[in-house]
Amino acid sequence: MMLGDVVDAVRDANCTPVIVTTELYDSEDTQITITGADLNQTLNEILPQTAGPVIIVMADLPLATGPDITRVVSTQSDMAVAPGRGGGTNAIFLKEPTRFHVDYYGTSFLKHKKIAEEAGLSCEVIDSFRLHTDIDEKEDLVELLIHGTGRSRTYLEGLGFGLTTDEKGRVGVERKKPPSVSSGS
Amino acid sequence: MMLGDVVDAVRDANCTPVIVTTELYDSEDTQITITGADLNQTLNEILPQTAGPVIIVMADLPLATGPDITRVVSTQSDMAVAPGRGGGTNAIFLKEPTRFHVDYYGTSFLKHKKIAEEAGLSCEVIDSFRLHTDIDEKEDLVELLIHGTGRSRTYLEGLGFGLTTDEKGRVGVERKKPPSVSSGS
Repeated sequence: MMLGDVVDAVRDANCTPVIVTTELYDSEDTQITITGADLNQTLNEILPQTAGPVIIVMADLPLATGPDITRVVSTQSDMAVAPGRGGGTNAIFLKEPTRFHVDYYGTSFLKHKKIAEEAGLSCEVIDSFRLHTDIDEKEDLVELLIHGTGRSRTYLEGLGFGLTTDEKGRVGVERKKPPSVSSGS
Repeated sequence: MMLGDVVDAVRDANCTPVIVTTELYDSEDTQITITGADLNQTLNEILPQTAGPVIIVMADLPLATGPDITRVVSTQSDMAVAPGRGGGTNAIFLKEPTRFHVDYYGTSFLKHKKIAEEAGLSCEVIDSFRLHTDIDEKEDLVELLIHGTGRSRTYLEGLGFGLTTDEKGRVGVERKKPPSVSSGS
C-alpha cells in the first residue's frame, strides 16, 4: 500500500514510475526492474545509463503526494535531496544522473550531500515532513492516520486501527474495531 | 538552548519575540510574560487582546531557522499551522488573532484545523520537517546533530555527543568524548 501511494504520487507529478525491487511485484501499468543486487549497487548501475532527469524515491513514504514530488523535481539546483528520519535519504532528484552515485544506509543524507559537493553539483535540501516521515515503527502510524490521504491510510483504517490519546496527551495507534477489509490480500 | 534557537529564528524572520513561560527566564533583550495558568488558558487570554498578526512557536524546535518562520508568516491564507510529530502543533500563524483560540495537547493539529474551519478561516498546512521535528526523546537528538545549525547543536557537541551508526545502519547518538563546556550553566 505504501509503495502504491508512492507510485501514485510520482505519477501525479507527471513522472513515469519504475519500481526497482528484489521481489516479484504484480503491476499492470508500472515498469518493474527486478534485481539480485543491493540498493546501492543496483542504482549505481542504473544511473550511469540514465540520460534524462531521474528521481529516486523510497517505498515507505505513504505521506508523499504529487505536489511533494513536484516540489523536489522543480528545484533550481543541479539536484535535490529530501532527508529521512534518522539521517536517511528519502528522495534524490538528479538532473544529470551520470554525474552522481548513491550511498544509502547509515547517515546517507550527509554522504549524499558530500558526494554532491565532490561532484560539483549544487544541491537543494527539501524541507518536507511528508517526505521526511518514513514509516518504520508502530508509532510512525500516528503520522499516517493524521496526515495520510492515500491507500495506506484507508487500508490501516479498514483494518480497524485508529488514534488514541492517553491521559498525558500522548497520541498513539490501536485497533479499535474488527477489520473491515482482508489483511491477507 | 532550544528556546534560544527559536528566539533567534523568530528574530531572523523580522518578528519580535515574546517568551511566555511559567518560570523566571533571564533575558536582556526579549520581553517575558510569566504566567501561572496553563498553555491554553494563557494563550486564549492573550489572543483576544492582540491586534496584529501573531505567530505562536513552541520552544523545543532547535531546527527552526529564520527562513522557516518566514515561510509560515508568508502564507496567503488567513492562518497557517505547522504540525508537530505525533499530532501536535508546533507553530500557528494568525493574521487576525481575535478570531482564533488554541487547544493544545493530544491531536491538537486536528483540533486547530477544525477550529479554523468553524471560524471560517482559510488555513495553510506548512510541510516542513524542520518545524515538525520537536525534540523530546534521546533519538530525536540525531536530527539535531544532522540538521541543526544553531546553539543547541553546538551545545550538544560541546557536551561530547556525536552520531553513531550500528551494524544495521541505524543511526544513534552517544557521548564520544568528555564535555568541553560546562553542563551546569
